[in-house]
Amino acid sequence: MKKFFRKPGSVGHAPGTLVSIEREAARPLELTIFEYGLDRNAEERRADTVAECMPFNTQAHVTWLNVDGSHQAKVLEEIGSNLDIHPLALEDILDTSQRPKMEDFEQYLFIELNMLLWDQEHAQVESEQVSLILGEKYVITFQEHEKDVFDPIRKRIREGKNRLTRQGADYLAYALIDAIVDHYFIVLENLGEQIEFLEDELISDPDGGTLQVIHELKRELIFLRKSVWPLREVIGALERGESPLFQESSLIYLRDVYDHTIQIIDTVETFRDMVSGMLDIYLSSISNRMNEVMKVLTIIATIFIPLSFFTGLYGMNFAYMPELQWRWGYFFLLGFLGTGFFWMFVFF
Amino acid sequence: MKKFFRKPGSVGHAPGTLVSIEREAARPLELTIFEYGLDRNAEERRADTVAECMPFNTQAHVTWLNVDGSHQAKVLEEIGSNLDIHPLALEDILDTSQRPKMEDFEQYLFIELNMLLWDQEHAQVESEQVSLILGEKYVITFQEHEKDVFDPIRKRIREGKNRLTRQGADYLAYALIDAIVDHYFIVLENLGEQIEFLEDELISDPDGGTLQVIHELKRELIFLRKSVWPLREVIGALERGESPLFQESSLIYLRDVYDHTIQIIDTVETFRDMVSGMLDIYLSSISNRMNEVMKVLTIIATIFIPLSFFTGLYGMNFAYMPELQWRWGYFFLLGFLGTGFFWMFVFF
Amino acid sequence: MKKFFRKPGSVGHAPGTLVSIEREAARPLELTIFEYGLDRNAEERRADTVAECMPFNTQAHVTWLNVDGSHQAKVLEEIGSNLDIHPLALEDILDTSQRPKMEDFEQYLFIELNMLLWDQEHAQVESEQVSLILGEKYVITFQEHEKDVFDPIRKRIREGKNRLTRQGADYLAYALIDAIVDHYFIVLENLGEQIEFLEDELISDPDGGTLQVIHELKRELIFLRKSVWPLREVIGALERGESPLFQESSLIYLRDVYDHTIQIIDTVETFRDMVSGMLDIYLSSISNRMNEVMKVLTIIATIFIPLSFFTGLYGMNFAYMPELQWRWGYFFLLGFLGTGFFWMFVFF
Amino acid sequence: MKKFFRKPGSVGHAPGTLVSIEREAARPLELTIFEYGLDRNAEERRADTVAECMPFNTQAHVTWLNVDGSHQAKVLEEIGSNLDIHPLALEDILDTSQRPKMEDFEQYLFIELNMLLWDQEHAQVESEQVSLILGEKYVITFQEHEKDVFDPIRKRIREGKNRLTRQGADYLAYALIDAIVDHYFIVLENLGEQIEFLEDELISDPDGGTLQVIHELKRELIFLRKSVWPLREVIGALERGESPLFQESSLIYLRDVYDHTIQIIDTVETFRDMVSGMLDIYLSSISNRMNEVMKVLTIIATIFIPLSFFTGLYGMNFAYMPELQWRWGYFFLLGFLGTGFFWMFVFF
Amino acid sequence: MKKFFRKPGSVGHAPGTLVSIEREAARPLELTIFEYGLDRNAEERRADTVAECMPFNTQAHVTWLNVDGSHQAKVLEEIGSNLDIHPLALEDILDTSQRPKMEDFEQYLFIELNMLLWDQEHAQVESEQVSLILGEKYVITFQEHEKDVFDPIRKRIREGKNRLTRQGADYLAYALIDAIVDHYFIVLENLGEQIEFLEDELISDPDGGTLQVIHELKRELIFLRKSVWPLREVIGALERGESPLFQESSLIYLRDVYDHTIQIIDTVETFRDMVSGMLDIYLSSISNRMNEVMKVLTIIATIFIPLSFFTGLYGMNFAYMPELQWRWGYFFLLGFLGTGFFWMFVFF
Repeated sequence: MKKFFRKPGSVGHAPGTLVSIEREAARPLELTIFEYGLDRNAEERRADTVAECMPFNTQAHVTWLNVDGSHQAKVLEEIGSNLDIHPLALEDILDTSQRPKMEDFEQYLFIELNMLLWDQEHAQVESEQVSLILGEKYVITFQEHEKDVFDPIRKRIREGKNRLTRQGADYLAYALIDAIVDHYFIVLENLGEQIEFLEDELISDPDGGTLQVIHELKRELIFLRKSVWPLREVIGALERGESPLFQESSLIYLRDVYDHTIQIIDTVETFRDMVSGMLDIYLSSISNRMNEVMKVLTIIATIFIPLSFFTGLYGMNFAYMPELQWRWGYFFLLGFLGTGFFWMFVFF
Repeated sequence: MKKFFRKPGSVGHAPGTLVSIEREAARPLELTIFEYGLDRNAEERRADTVAECMPFNTQAHVTWLNVDGSHQAKVLEEIGSNLDIHPLALEDILDTSQRPKMEDFEQYLFIELNMLLWDQEHAQVESEQVSLILGEKYVITFQEHEKDVFDPIRKRIREGKNRLTRQGADYLAYALIDAIVDHYFIVLENLGEQIEFLEDELISDPDGGTLQVIHELKRELIFLRKSVWPLREVIGALERGESPLFQESSLIYLRDVYDHTIQIIDTVETFRDMVSGMLDIYLSSISNRMNEVMKVLTIIATIFIPLSFFTGLYGMNFAYMPELQWRWGYFFLLGFLGTGFFWMFVFF
Repeated sequence: MKKFFRKPGSVGHAPGTLVSIEREAARPLELTIFEYGLDRNAEERRADTVAECMPFNTQAHVTWLNVDGSHQAKVLEEIGSNLDIHPLALEDILDTSQRPKMEDFEQYLFIELNMLLWDQEHAQVESEQVSLILGEKYVITFQEHEKDVFDPIRKRIREGKNRLTRQGADYLAYALIDAIVDHYFIVLENLGEQIEFLEDELISDPDGGTLQVIHELKRELIFLRKSVWPLREVIGALERGESPLFQESSLIYLRDVYDHTIQIIDTVETFRDMVSGMLDIYLSSISNRMNEVMKVLTIIATIFIPLSFFTGLYGMNFAYMPELQWRWGYFFLLGFLGTGFFWMFVFF
Repeated sequence: MKKFFRKPGSVGHAPGTLVSIEREAARPLELTIFEYGLDRNAEERRADTVAECMPFNTQAHVTWLNVDGSHQAKVLEEIGSNLDIHPLALEDILDTSQRPKMEDFEQYLFIELNMLLWDQEHAQVESEQVSLILGEKYVITFQEHEKDVFDPIRKRIREGKNRLTRQGADYLAYALIDAIVDHYFIVLENLGEQIEFLEDELISDPDGGTLQVIHELKRELIFLRKSVWPLREVIGALERGESPLFQESSLIYLRDVYDHTIQIIDTVETFRDMVSGMLDIYLSSISNRMNEVMKVLTIIATIFIPLSFFTGLYGMNFAYMPELQWRWGYFFLLGFLGTGFFWMFVFF
Repeated sequence: MKKFFRKPGSVGHAPGTLVSIEREAARPLELTIFEYGLDRNAEERRADTVAECMPFNTQAHVTWLNVDGSHQAKVLEEIGSNLDIHPLALEDILDTSQRPKMEDFEQYLFIELNMLLWDQEHAQVESEQVSLILGEKYVITFQEHEKDVFDPIRKRIREGKNRLTRQGADYLAYALIDAIVDHYFIVLENLGEQIEFLEDELISDPDGGTLQVIHELKRELIFLRKSVWPLREVIGALERGESPLFQESSLIYLRDVYDHTIQIIDTVETFRDMVSGMLDIYLSSISNRMNEVMKVLTIIATIFIPLSFFTGLYGMNFAYMPELQWRWGYFFLLGFLGTGFFWMFVFF
């Protein structure tokens, strides 16, 4: 149920109140900073407190601060007061129950996304909330866990001298969003494999376990659908280019990501269609099989019950039953029963 | 059925006629007033008649009048004539069958909402209509019962010196709406737990009771859905900022509430998908189980009915049945039946 | 089927041709006129011919002509030529198969509505077409039958000195529409009661009759839905205030009616959801019950068929069956069968 | 399948290529011309070649050329070159697989419609494509077969001195479209009767044939729906009055036709709802009946199988079975079995 | 699954990175060039490298370069740098998992389409991605395989002196798109035949294989639907004439293609409706048949089980059973059983 619904942490508190999520309190905080620009190599630092990072180096063309541990209210408050972030945005970062959304605060864009990961071990989708703040010269990302999909981007920054390091903060934001969206395809690929496997099973040997798997696939797809439609809204809003923070030249890249989200939605809907079709087929084949079973029963019963009636008839102990005395009575009866059996058998 | 449909009290009366709802007449009336402002502490009073409250103290920055007992036509008329409220709005307050709506009367905004509460005892959703009138310097809330979700707000007013008391009447209206919407999450959380519980039961041991619970969950979700879509319309209309009564600075808070209603709708729709998927699974597993039962029956019948035929055959009393006289006839037959049984058994 | 589809009377005729509906020709014509205004008491007259009514008294502020018997082509033609009504509108009045619609002919508004009545005796919805023409100073209503829902309005006109008599023809039109829409709630209330009753039955004792009732409820709701969506369009169009015949001050009342139609649609859709959910539950419980029945059969068969095999075995008449001669053979067998029975019984 | 899908004749050819439909080549061509105007009687001619008809008499106010045999490429080319019709329009006329559409070529309007006829003999819907070209002073209609629904219009032209002959070509086009749309009601009436009949059968005595009829009705409605939605688009586009070829005064008549298409769509959707509801009811009553059958079987088996066990028991031939020797053993057993039977019977 | 989902090749790479699809690397590259214009015959060349083709002959009015083997990154890069194509477009060409789309890069239009082919052997739909770049005087098409639907167009170019060779590059692009869309009809025709065949089978003799075929048809239709909706968007966008590359005179042809896509969508949706209706009918007839089987079983059991009870009764060996000694006991019983049998038989 966690996956489908989490009560916002702020329920029952004044709006803008930052409530640390206690169940997560044990997780350590980790801050990572990348600074890079046209004329300089990328610099990479780790820090334990916000004070070590702020204010950002104004020399750097782009600063990327990644915060692992978006659950710590105090850290968020510090960052918020340094960069003048609206309390409601901070509350949304802290609250991991948010649906994907984008809000334009003029000085900065605030973006919430769901990062999906495929948990190979349990064969299911995992979800983590990523918040992203895009300022004129900086990007801040907030994650719940350390595990993420940004390693290729870190590598590209470290290598330097590519399109990513030549462009501004907006392109970095795009690259991060693109990495998240791309990972949806990995998830879809795994689900697709499950569906394919299920389809084979459905034809060869459906049983109660098949039903269970169909049910789980349905749930995963409901969940995916819930993540992916608002994602499309968010990226669609970015792509329409309403914020001056995204330069004209970056918009074509956003359009590309937008096309990807459409493709993801298409695939999710197709998968849903397929899985619900499979349930129908499953039900039909259960009915079919029951029909077969019933037929066997009916044939056996229809053949033998009348025959047994006759054997019962001549097993009676009446004093006067003339047939019993006939010399060939038994053989006549055997013949009669045999013929009956034969015709019944032929009939079915 | 009460939950899904209540005939408006005004059916058959001239529009704007205020008809007291008699079944409620016994409930007492209770008026509570809060007056607060920038430079003064909050004042809190209780009153029994409208005359004690009106006219509002013009000194106070914000006046909040809460009326428990929106069913008394006379009280509504008095308030209406004091503040020049349109008769149709009064009729809507009186009539607890309204769907959520918002109407802009220029001098004031009239808002109807459903307050949802979770009745832990009967494990079901309870609903109460709350009407809210927002004027330039006052907010009036009308409730059917005393039980409400506004206690945290009352506490914040009493404490004073926080964002709530520093802002105007529009922020108070926002805070009240936010409290109502937040409570929807509590309801969703409880329904989510029921669904989770049901899902476990569905796998481990589905029975007729499971069906009953699925049916009830479906009903609760139909009801929730009926409340939540118009709620979104109302808050969406407020958030678009068409009324000058809501100041620019409050709009971002309304947008936050709006996001919450979207999230609620998302969750309700997801729950609906899940519950209807559960019904399919339930039906399938019933079919599956019947299949198992039928198989057992068929196997037993298919094995024993033919065997019994042979015992019947040799129970006949024909005078001349040569096999009966054979020394080893009985044992041959036993062997024959045993072999038949064995092969049948292996076959299934 | 009459309810769901009536072929327009004009099929196969030139447009604007007025064809009397013959099956109705026997019903008598009845004209009733109300004339009232600010400075005069309401005058009420009955007439048998159109000539007695026309032209309208120009002194009266508002004239309401009610025509019972909209099926008589000649009468319509007379009225049409007196007031210069477009032939297509007259054709629509005559033709009782119309769906609700509104047309603005500048000099007058032409409105078609379905008046729903609850037929207590047959527990079903009855429908009658009401056409309404609103001119600057007059309202004409055309009904098929005498039975209608306008009595409270007639009473208010006769009483005089209330909002209705102080306002113009547009308010009268509103009041008539409001009376019709209000009556939909009565119908919904009755359907709601049927649903509630059905739901109890569904749980306590579903049978073939339940199915029949579900089917009928579904039909009633399909019919209601067909009436109610175009009703919303019509009133929505009026409420947008595009016609100068409706004064600004009346629009708020129309908005109120519009809210009612939305509420009616909501309720109809909710009822549909509930009834279709009930069919699912019905099907499930049928399956469930069949399962129970099958289980009983299987248990009985599985216990007794093998036992009977053994009794059959020792009922054989072989000359040499050593067990039959044993002193305690019978009791051994009894013990064996008893044990078998016992374990089988425990097993199920 | 022909009804639901016909491959366009032009597949695999260059656009605008006119390919005669060979399967139809045998059908004869027939041209009929009506010329009429304000000051002259209608003139009616038949022709075998296009040359006999063209150019149109400029004296006539309106010329209507009806072409039976729209399958002959050569004829279309001749007409096309005479009146300067776009090759794509000609291709569409020739190709009877088109969906209803309207195209504005400025000098003329090109309209494709489906004419529906009810085939009484096979109790099914027949469809024929009608193409209509409306120029300033002429209307050309192209039909596949001779059978059509235009006879009432021909009669009105011959009679003269009515609204039709007083108006221009646009009114004639309207009248033709109106005749086609009106005929949809005839089709609906027949389908409605089938549904009504089916509903009675469903309650009194559903069998496999019922299923077949439901299936066929569903198909007819799918087909109807496919015709009727684009019809609405076409007439809606005309009614918005974007083409100057339709005069202002004709638009109100088009609006009337538009209302009819809406009513047709409403009815088709209602019928679909009803038919799919009937399938549910059918399935439920099948389940119900199987339940009844199973119950009978279970009762019989549950009563007699245990009783038979006892008769088998005392049919055994053990040497020492004390009960067999009791004087009243048989009667005790009879009593025992009778009591068992009685209580079992009462129990069910 | 390949059909329903392919992971984009670029997942995990920087955007605009061209990654050769290795599984395809073995396929040879083939370049074909057509050059034609008003005043010259068409010239046709084959090439193995991009260098042989570029730069395009500026004399030719239209140049069509067809690339078989869109999987080779190096080739794409060469073409891209020659004609200044955006890296994202190249990436999309390379990546055969794209959904149909259109992008306007001002200097050229980039269009992605799915070419559908009917694989007669496996009776299923095959899909290939075709990318099309339309510049002012050239068209470049990229295909995965050599097999395509463009032969009629090649033939028309070679013949010369027809509308195609007289028009510009935009008309060629239209003709290519038209050829692709036309081929959808071939696919639909084949699916339609399968549906028709299935429908006959459904009525005459449904079995498990029928279910399998329904399932496969459903899948094909899901796939078709996924291809055809975005196709409509693409062609709709072209037809609205927003790009100056398509001249006014070509737009009417695009509108014609657009109408075809609408017709295709209509047909796909109709087929879906029909196939899902067939599943219902299949399920119903399975239920129906099981009912028949059960009835037979019940009749046999209900007739013979009670009869057998009586034969068992008189097969008992009680010492004192008076009926057994009666002279006509046996015949009385026979008569009794016969009468019972007769009445039971009549009853069913």
